[in-house]
Amino acid sequence: MGFKFISAEEAAGLIKNDDVIGFSGFTAAGCPKAVTIALAKKAEEEHAKGKPFKVGMYTGASTGDSVDGQLARANAIKFRSPYQSNGDLRKALNAHDAHYFDLHLSEIQQYLRYGFLPRPNIAIIEAADVTEDGKITLTSAVGIAPTIVQLADIVIVELNKFHPKELSGIHDIYQPLDPPYRREIPVYKPSDRIGVPYVQVDPKKIVGIVETNLPNEIGAFVPTDEVTDQIGKNVADFFAAEMKAGRIPASFLPVQSGVGNVANAVLGAMGLSKEIPAFEVYTEVIQDSVIALMKENRVKFASGCSLTLSAEALSEVYGNLELYKQKLVLRPQEISNSPEVARRLGLIAINTALEADIFGNINSTHVVGTKMMNGIGGSADFCRNAYLSVFTTPSVAKDGKISAIVPMVSHVDHSEHSVKILITEFGVADLRGLAPIQRAESIIENCVHPEYKKLLSDYLKLGVKGHTPQHLETCFAFHNAFNKTGDMRNVDWSLCK
Amino acid sequence: MGFKFISAEEAAGLIKNDDVIGFSGFTAAGCPKAVTIALAKKAEEEHAKGKPFKVGMYTGASTGDSVDGQLARANAIKFRSPYQSNGDLRKALNAHDAHYFDLHLSEIQQYLRYGFLPRPNIAIIEAADVTEDGKITLTSAVGIAPTIVQLADIVIVELNKFHPKELSGIHDIYQPLDPPYRREIPVYKPSDRIGVPYVQVDPKKIVGIVETNLPNEIGAFVPTDEVTDQIGKNVADFFAAEMKAGRIPASFLPVQSGVGNVANAVLGAMGLSKEIPAFEVYTEVIQDSVIALMKENRVKFASGCSLTLSAEALSEVYGNLELYKQKLVLRPQEISNSPEVARRLGLIAINTALEADIFGNINSTHVVGTKMMNGIGGSADFCRNAYLSVFTTPSVAKDGKISAIVPMVSHVDHSEHSVKILITEFGVADLRGLAPIQRAESIIENCVHPEYKKLLSDYLKLGVKGHTPQHLETCFAFHNAFNKTGDMRNVDWSLCK
Repeated sequence: MGFKFISAEEAAGLIKNDDVIGFSGFTAAGCPKAVTIALAKKAEEEHAKGKPFKVGMYTGASTGDSVDGQLARANAIKFRSPYQSNGDLRKALNAHDAHYFDLHLSEIQQYLRYGFLPRPNIAIIEAADVTEDGKITLTSAVGIAPTIVQLADIVIVELNKFHPKELSGIHDIYQPLDPPYRREIPVYKPSDRIGVPYVQVDPKKIVGIVETNLPNEIGAFVPTDEVTDQIGKNVADFFAAEMKAGRIPASFLPVQSGVGNVANAVLGAMGLSKEIPAFEVYTEVIQDSVIALMKENRVKFASGCSLTLSAEALSEVYGNLELYKQKLVLRPQEISNSPEVARRLGLIAINTALEADIFGNINSTHVVGTKMMNGIGGSADFCRNAYLSVFTTPSVAKDGKISAIVPMVSHVDHSEHSVKILITEFGVADLRGLAPIQRAESIIENCVHPEYKKLLSDYLKLGVKGHTPQHLETCFAFHNAFNKTGDMRNVDWSLCK
Repeated sequence: MGFKFISAEEAAGLIKNDDVIGFSGFTAAGCPKAVTIALAKKAEEEHAKGKPFKVGMYTGASTGDSVDGQLARANAIKFRSPYQSNGDLRKALNAHDAHYFDLHLSEIQQYLRYGFLPRPNIAIIEAADVTEDGKITLTSAVGIAPTIVQLADIVIVELNKFHPKELSGIHDIYQPLDPPYRREIPVYKPSDRIGVPYVQVDPKKIVGIVETNLPNEIGAFVPTDEVTDQIGKNVADFFAAEMKAGRIPASFLPVQSGVGNVANAVLGAMGLSKEIPAFEVYTEVIQDSVIALMKENRVKFASGCSLTLSAEALSEVYGNLELYKQKLVLRPQEISNSPEVARRLGLIAINTALEADIFGNINSTHVVGTKMMNGIGGSADFCRNAYLSVFTTPSVAKDGKISAIVPMVSHVDHSEHSVKILITEFGVADLRGLAPIQRAESIIENCVHPEYKKLLSDYLKLGVKGHTPQHLETCFAFHNAFNKTGDMRNVDWSLCK
C-alpha cells in the first residue's frame, strides 16, 4: 500500500490549536481510539507550556472514552456537536468550558455541507480496510464519515485490525445531493441498499495510517428490571391492541427504538408477544436485543447507523458475518434518521423521556432544566415523522423522590405535537385527539405513580383559565422542591394559592 | 346533472348530534359558507329544546366566520382540529367548551386515514364545479378535501358560483399511499404537478348540492408598518449576505413564508432586494404579497395550499386566470407541508414567533402560556425541515409592556433545535453552532428591545450553573409581572436572589 504508516503521536502532531476535527463513529462504535489519546496528551503538554490548545469536534453521536473523555479531561474541546454522553465532557459543557450545541442527528451532515458550521479541516476515521484508490471500509458504525472526509483537507485513518475486512458489504454509503439538486432518498423498505459499500476519499488527502487493534469501548448489556419489563409489556400489549383495532397493519411496520435498558425491555417484550409478527427495524442504534431477536427469527432485518453491541453480541455477528450481512445494513445518519424515510416507511417509534409533563411535552436532555445530559439525538427525527410515536419512562426515579411526570417539563425537546402515546409501568395514556386538559387527565389516570396522583390532580385545581391551564408561578414547584429538599413530594399547593 | 339540489337547511337536516364533519378549505379560502350557518341555527334550535347538539370538526386550517364563528357561537362544537383563528372559537376552547387539539398541518390527513381520530362521517365541500361521475373542482384552497371525501359516508357540496369553473387546472390533487406501501412524493421543484386537477368522490356519496354565490370571508390586506418593514429589511439583508458568503446558492432556494403582516413585509423586502434573484415560493398560504411580486416578475412560481387573497388580489388572479394557472398550483396540505418535500427542495423558511426566549425556543401558540391563540399550523412542518429556518418577531408588543423575548417561553412549540436565525427590527441573531449561553448573548445583543436588555442580561447573572442556566424559580417573572402589573418591565431580579 502506498500510504504512510505513522504512529498515533505523529498523527496528533499534524493537529494544531483551533483545528476542527470530524470523527467517524456513532456511539462508541466505530470511533477512533488511538490518535485522540495522543492528541489529549499533546494538549496537556501545550497547556503546561502555557499555550492554548483546543479543537472543534464533530462526531456521529456519542463516542468512546478515548475521544470525548480523553479530550474533555485534557480541556482540549473548544466546541462539540451533535451528541455526547461522556461524564467528563458533560461536566465540561455544563461548566461552559466546552461549548456544546445540540442538533438533530439527521441534520449534522447537511448542516456541515451547507457551510453553516466551521468546516472540519481534519477527519479521523476508523477503518477495517482502505484501498490505494481511497475506498474505506468503515468498522461498526457509519455516522458522518462520508461527509467529513469530503470536507476535510486531510484524513487520518486508524486501521483497526480488531474489525474484519470482511465487514465490507454491511455498510450502504449514500450522500444526497444538496438543494436545489436533491432527489428522493430511494429507501422503500429497511433492507433497500441505495449506495456503495465504502466511503470514497481522495487518496491524496490520507496523510497517514495508524494501525491499531482495539475493541469498541462499549459497556456490557444493561439488564432490564421489573419496572422496565412492565413498561415493555405495556408497549407490546398496546401495539397488539392497535393491530386488533386495525390501526397498525397486520404485517406490522418497521420499528425504531431508542437506546438503553427501557428500549431493550420494549424490544424484548415485543419479541415475546404472540400477537406481534416478526418485524423489521429501522433505527439509529442496533443494540444487543436486536441481535437476540434475530437469532429467534423475531426480527427479520435491521437497518441502523451503528452496531452498538456488547463484546459478546459483536462476537456473535462477526462469527457469522456472511449470515448477518444479509440481515443488517449500516447507513450514514442522514439516511438512518431521515425524516423523509421515517415518514414513508411509517415507523413505529419508541423513545425514552427523561421527564414528561401532564400536557404531553417531553424533556429528553436537561436535568432539572439546566444540566445537559446527553442531547436530543435522533429522537426528534423519528418521533416527529413516525407513523405512531410512543414515549416511555419509568414513573419515578431516585426511590420516588423524583416524579418523571411533572406539571411542566423543565426543558422541552419534543412538544406535545410529537407525543402520541405515553407509557409508564402503570399504563398507557393514548393522547391522540385529546385537548390539553384531557391529556392531563389521561396521563394522571394512567401513567403517574400513585404517590404523585393527588399532587398533580390538585395542580389542575389551582384555578387557571385557558386551553393549557399552566400556573406559571408554581409550574416548577416539583423541581424547586427537589432542588431545596431533595424530594418532589414536598410540594404543597395550598401555599401557592 | 343527476345530483339533487337542496337548500342549506335541508343539508343541515342531514347532520345529527355527535356527527363528525370534515370541511374543505384552508384559512377562510375554500370553506363552506351556507350549510354551516343553517347548521348553527339547527344547533341553537335543538339546544332551545333542551337537546344536545354538538359536532366534531376537521378542516384544513382556520376557516371563515361562517364555519368556526357560527358554530362556536351556537356552542355546537364538540371537538376541533387542527388549527383555528376565530375569536369566538378561541373563547370556547379556552373555556374548555370545545375541545381543540393542535396538530402539524401536514399530519392531519394521514392521521385521519390511519384511524387515529374519530372518522369524519360527513364531508362538506365547496366546489367550483362537479361532474356527474364525481369529479370535484375545488375553489381557492385544497386543505384536507381529498381525504375527507374518501372517509365520509356522505358528501354535501356547496357549489359556489363566485368561483369560475375555469379554476380547473390550478389544483394538483395527490394522496400518497399509506405505509407500508408509500412511495416518494415526486415533487422536485415547486412547479411539479404530480396528481390530477380534481377531487374524485364516489358520486353515490353526494347527497345534495347547495348552490351559493358567496365571496371568501378574507379580511383586507394587513398593512405593514415601520417595525415590520425594518424586520423585512433585516431578513432580506441577511439572505443577501448569506448568498455572498456562499451559504445560499446563487439561484436562491424556494421560499416558505408564514401568514400576516410580518410575512408580507418580509416578502416585500425580498422583492425589493437587488441582491436576491427572482425566486419561487413553496408554502401553505399564498398571500397578496406573492401575487404583487409575480406582477413584478420577482416571484416566478408559487405552490401553496390556498389562495388567501384580498378581494382585489383574487380579482386580479381570476381576471387573468390562464396566466396565473401557469404560475400557481394548489396542493393538499400533506403535500404543501410535506417534511419530505421541504427538506428535499431546501426551503428558506420564515415564520413568526409569538414569543421567543433567550436560548432560542419559540412559542407560536399560547398567550402567557395558557390561552391558545391559533395553533401551530404548518410552521413546524417547515422550520424543522427547512434548509434554513428563520423566525421573526417585533421585539415588543403593547407599547413595550410585553417583551417578545423572555427568559423562558411560556409554551414551547419550536424547540431550540428548529430555530437557526432570530430576527427583530433591531437585528439578526445567527444561532447556528452556538451553545445556549452564546445564543442568549447573541439574542440579547442583536434582537432584544433596549428597554429589556439589562433585565435579560441580569437574568443570566443570577448564578445558575449548567448548560442552560434557567432559574426555575424566576424564569416566568416576566409573565408573572405582566399578569400582576400589566407590564413586564416591573421585574426586579434583586428580589429573586
